[in-house]
Amino acid sequence: MPRIHIQNKADDLESKITPELWQALGGPEGASFAEDEAGFRAGIADAAYLITATSALRPYRALIPGQLRGIFCTSAGMDSIAPFDWLPQGTMLMNNSGVHADRGGEYVAMALLMLRQEMPAMIAAQQRGVWEKHYTSVLRGCTLVSIGTGALGAAGARAARLFGMKTIGVRTKAEPHPDFDRVVAAADLDSVLPLAEFLLLAAPLTPQSQNILDARRIALLPKGAGVINIGRGALIAQDALCDALDAGALGGAVLDVFSPEPIPPGHRLWTTRHLVITPHVSADDPAIYASDSVKLFLENLAAIERGETPPNLVDISKGY
Amino acid sequence: MPRIHIQNKADDLESKITPELWQALGGPEGASFAEDEAGFRAGIADAAYLITATSALRPYRALIPGQLRGIFCTSAGMDSIAPFDWLPQGTMLMNNSGVHADRGGEYVAMALLMLRQEMPAMIAAQQRGVWEKHYTSVLRGCTLVSIGTGALGAAGARAARLFGMKTIGVRTKAEPHPDFDRVVAAADLDSVLPLAEFLLLAAPLTPQSQNILDARRIALLPKGAGVINIGRGALIAQDALCDALDAGALGGAVLDVFSPEPIPPGHRLWTTRHLVITPHVSADDPAIYASDSVKLFLENLAAIERGETPPNLVDISKGY
Repeated sequence: MPRIHIQNKADDLESKITPELWQALGGPEGASFAEDEAGFRAGIADAAYLITATSALRPYRALIPGQLRGIFCTSAGMDSIAPFDWLPQGTMLMNNSGVHADRGGEYVAMALLMLRQEMPAMIAAQQRGVWEKHYTSVLRGCTLVSIGTGALGAAGARAARLFGMKTIGVRTKAEPHPDFDRVVAAADLDSVLPLAEFLLLAAPLTPQSQNILDARRIALLPKGAGVINIGRGALIAQDALCDALDAGALGGAVLDVFSPEPIPPGHRLWTTRHLVITPHVSADDPAIYASDSVKLFLENLAAIERGETPPNLVDISKGY
Repeated sequence: MPRIHIQNKADDLESKITPELWQALGGPEGASFAEDEAGFRAGIADAAYLITATSALRPYRALIPGQLRGIFCTSAGMDSIAPFDWLPQGTMLMNNSGVHADRGGEYVAMALLMLRQEMPAMIAAQQRGVWEKHYTSVLRGCTLVSIGTGALGAAGARAARLFGMKTIGVRTKAEPHPDFDRVVAAADLDSVLPLAEFLLLAAPLTPQSQNILDARRIALLPKGAGVINIGRGALIAQDALCDALDAGALGGAVLDVFSPEPIPPGHRLWTTRHLVITPHVSADDPAIYASDSVKLFLENLAAIERGETPPNLVDISKGY
């Protein structure tokens, strides 16, 4: 079996891949585990595969040896290690797409319900100590537009369907997708924004998707629309979104990702009107994260050994 | 057809039954509509049925004439017009049970998701302007105990099942219920509280259910449990709940009903730790409230005219 090096994040108590977990899940023997640079250098020297988070890989990109057959990143988004000029030719890059779906779906369900029930306004009223009724209706029949139809966007659409919502997906090409009533190409995004009572951002961050929700497109949303972001902060022109929220043009937003992270003390985001902030936790389930990541790596490894393309191979020309 | 008087609340803009709505839904001709006492006295004099909210009925209880065949209250809980010594013998009292189920179910879904994802702590962190991660898992496999298995409790259980939760119902007698995996009698409540990762209060308020969740029973809940109340505030020993929340014994609470309402300015509820307050709006859907209430009344009227017991008849010996 090929030798595998596992580089954990030193400060990661939630999703560390331990030797015990590795063995319990049937990981190949001879694996090495490290959390610092010396351990990385020693472990990577004769490894065939590397398993690591993008944040742990980022400082060591220049140290990736040409013999490495593959890198499995325990993250969904590859934007923090792009561009990929450091990646040796012939080394496959794989992501962790799929591990976040169940948890991310429940986050989207919560965000849709909170926005529909005007919780941002009621949370603000509670903070002021004011009894202020907001009578609201159900989600049934409302429309969710998701920018991104990958594992997270699809999980969000399934969450919306639990409550009888209509779902529209926006992806590179307008190929049908079973979790969406309708799919439009990214080039036609503007045509569906006026339908988006709720807009979900669940796309990878690339040069094409950066600021995809800008001031002009925010203005295309229906008055009172709700915005949910579980992708990357830079998908949104953040100041324009804060302006629209503060002006009351949007009903509210539930955001898990920001530019920058962590949000600095005193940043306007902390006090933006009808904004619910969660600190980049929407899709990481500590109960299953490490084990599901290992299982997904082993599925990809098995595919490679059978001579197939691993299902989580990143297309570095696209960035996801 | 029998003549019907409809007494609306003067300040009710959300769920008023208008002559236009009444006609559109096929309500019998000759109905009278009023919002003040003079209109009540005039309309009730020769009416066979009265449709009104409990809050609008409360001041006029002594004016109910003996010829009235039935009162249909557009409210689910009858506690504010109990005891029923003012009700003429032979006058049927009916409630609005069922109209709140869809909206109430979405409220419970939101509350379960918010509590599981530790939103009360994250809302507090946002208020302090602090980036404080809370990694949490999904609802699947968690247990909801519902005190009350009526229309609202059952809707809460169905919401829990959407996310793969286990459901235990607590009702007067341990009769099976399709929305609950298991039902126990109220006398056995203590035996299931240690299983209640989430506890829903959705029972009518009666002398038996008042303070049903008291300090002793709060202490039987698992550490970190979440409490949801969509019934009546007085079901809970409110100060004991606030104490448990402030002490960190419970994970959080999402409450829609309180004693008293509105919560007065400066009340400790406003600043209780990990408490989410909504101002008694969890189950009133303005999009359908008035029309569904009329439809439900007409169903009950048709049953009466067929010589059957109307489905929403209140058992005044029980109070619901």
